[in-house]
Amino acid sequence: MVNVAILGFGTVGSGVADVLTMNRDLIRQRAGSEVALKYILDVRQFPDSPYKDCFVNDFSTIENDPEVDIVVETIGGATVALDFTRRALNAGKSVVSSNKELVATHGYELLQLAAEKGVSYLFEASVGGGIPVLRPLTNCLAGNELSEVRGILNGTTNYILTRMIRAGLSFEQALKEAQDNGYAERDPSADIEGHDACRKICILAALAFGRHVYPDWVPTQGITAITLADVDYANSCGYKIKLLGRALKMDGGKVCAYVAPHLVSSDNPLAGVEDVFNAIAATGNAVGDVMFYGRGAGKLPTASAVVGDVVDIAKDVTAPKRNQWAAGDADMVQSPDRLTFRWYVRANGTMDAARSAVGDITPLARGGAPASEVAFLTETMTQEDLNRKLAGMDVLSAIRVLG
Amino acid sequence: MVNVAILGFGTVGSGVADVLTMNRDLIRQRAGSEVALKYILDVRQFPDSPYKDCFVNDFSTIENDPEVDIVVETIGGATVALDFTRRALNAGKSVVSSNKELVATHGYELLQLAAEKGVSYLFEASVGGGIPVLRPLTNCLAGNELSEVRGILNGTTNYILTRMIRAGLSFEQALKEAQDNGYAERDPSADIEGHDACRKICILAALAFGRHVYPDWVPTQGITAITLADVDYANSCGYKIKLLGRALKMDGGKVCAYVAPHLVSSDNPLAGVEDVFNAIAATGNAVGDVMFYGRGAGKLPTASAVVGDVVDIAKDVTAPKRNQWAAGDADMVQSPDRLTFRWYVRANGTMDAARSAVGDITPLARGGAPASEVAFLTETMTQEDLNRKLAGMDVLSAIRVLG
Repeated sequence: MVNVAILGFGTVGSGVADVLTMNRDLIRQRAGSEVALKYILDVRQFPDSPYKDCFVNDFSTIENDPEVDIVVETIGGATVALDFTRRALNAGKSVVSSNKELVATHGYELLQLAAEKGVSYLFEASVGGGIPVLRPLTNCLAGNELSEVRGILNGTTNYILTRMIRAGLSFEQALKEAQDNGYAERDPSADIEGHDACRKICILAALAFGRHVYPDWVPTQGITAITLADVDYANSCGYKIKLLGRALKMDGGKVCAYVAPHLVSSDNPLAGVEDVFNAIAATGNAVGDVMFYGRGAGKLPTASAVVGDVVDIAKDVTAPKRNQWAAGDADMVQSPDRLTFRWYVRANGTMDAARSAVGDITPLARGGAPASEVAFLTETMTQEDLNRKLAGMDVLSAIRVLG
Repeated sequence: MVNVAILGFGTVGSGVADVLTMNRDLIRQRAGSEVALKYILDVRQFPDSPYKDCFVNDFSTIENDPEVDIVVETIGGATVALDFTRRALNAGKSVVSSNKELVATHGYELLQLAAEKGVSYLFEASVGGGIPVLRPLTNCLAGNELSEVRGILNGTTNYILTRMIRAGLSFEQALKEAQDNGYAERDPSADIEGHDACRKICILAALAFGRHVYPDWVPTQGITAITLADVDYANSCGYKIKLLGRALKMDGGKVCAYVAPHLVSSDNPLAGVEDVFNAIAATGNAVGDVMFYGRGAGKLPTASAVVGDVVDIAKDVTAPKRNQWAAGDADMVQSPDRLTFRWYVRANGTMDAARSAVGDITPLARGGAPASEVAFLTETMTQEDLNRKLAGMDVLSAIRVLG
């Protein structure tokens, strides 16, 4: 018998309770022993919940119960969640988390602590919701030197962009629709400004390249400045605008990570990832390109990933899972300013002025454009070069093109 | 130090040697100990190979060497490979295989033997080449009851279909091109007649549903009858023709597995999988739909999957990986004849005759069709119903539509 305590009975926490219950027999078979829900920690009362007998409101009940083997942390944030995670690990309990903020900011410390205590700290659900990605990246691709991990890491922004592309909604209209459908928070800034994707690319970079990468080191741009004009121009040349997180291993072992919108070619499988779906692609020196696709958020999909980790630990609670990375160091991070791209540019001016400023360009057209507007694709250059060339122009948008 | 012996120095076997060598330092870090190539078994001589000191031609050298921990079987087929796999497991060595034929026909027996001997039998490379799919399916999705696994499981046929769709080549022309590019064998029948995909769906079905499914129980249809006319009609209504393997869990716990071409809607991520790429999708009761995408064949991608398994075992050679399924039983298999589909039909005749035979239909058109030809999509029905309704017609093609 393996006993589980869930911290936080929100969307994900209640989903974990539901999955452990509805798939109980299968989970017992696969884990090789009964996986029982013993406690749920929440400050609120749930008198009508089917799990009402599990609720406690003092973490020390869980911390001090030697029967609890696995603590599921679905509180979110990096304050209470950090404290409880440290205490659970110190008490010799394995911890499974869906909390990307905590992993991205304190993952190194918590993995060290778990290793010291001979327990596991797993967080498959922190990236890509239900999509298996962290374990495949670290286990199945263990024979590869990875050169890049990239992905559509945030379902809210992908939904908004899909609705702009497919239904011609403005950013504001699409955001409103996403909020009405429960795909976006009342305060959507963590999603639309790219911070959520930033935390996820930090975790992916740490697993792929073996060093902690902190969110502060990752230049992050969201989708608030994307207009329907940009969507139309992108469409006219066979591209879709997607918010990507990317982490690349550079020559000399440095890591370059950033979050920004990109024009993605329709031939690229990432371009076909629509609505709230996520996809994470990786490039290895043996496997080439692989991609993982599925629901990147939601109650049951995220709970699926949490329960996958729980089962993995429950198979043998005495055998901690190796899942380490080294300390981060700001010196190992390289700015994306030195990467080269083709760029999509929209500006006020004439095509002649654009040509004399930027050199060879591919002009783009859209119906209903004001006479003062030009848009074009540049040749390959760094952001610094582009900025210098565009210095004299009234630039409305400049977006990287994924080659 | 963990010692590896490779059986068979063909494409995959030599790829495994190359990956173990080129990524040696990374593999040592990830496995926690040196993973050394000690032997390569082949009947041929390779005097110029960088691994020339490893070659042996008597399997008993490997079998009797207590220093060999892991045997990599890349011989193929189910004769010699079966004998050597049994002997390696009996000698207390873990076995990693890329051999789908052996796993599909003898997987149950070999997994039982591995469990008895306290060693591992892993075969990630047997399905989807380098794509991580078997381990994610069994580990990351362990919290799910799976209802279906489906996929584009054969790169050769997907390349041929892609070239028919994209370049307008006939089946024969596309097959010739695939052979010239090394994507198809001189004798392509195992690929184009669907047998390769059949073995892979058997392995996926066993892992997803927990019982061995033998290839003989799986109705299998290849792509040799697909014409450019079918490709054009499919395209006219927003579909692409793909060869899919599918395994479904039916009411009452039976399993329905089959291989056949399908018209796949362009909105389905499987439709975007082109050339030699493979993709495997799974549906779980918590996660919903997930998909894994990448190179389904080739020297280094397949070796990547083999080495991933090797590293997994090398982390702790004394801890066998749980990876079991139960014996198969022909009674648990249900024929796909009882599944319902919309159907694409091409026939000689008139649309009126088609309508009076089949009922409500959606007519299709293509440029250059002979006056005698009709094509249409039917309403949803079983194969049996369709066959009965079409009995009086001169049917040229009838292909399932994936809803």
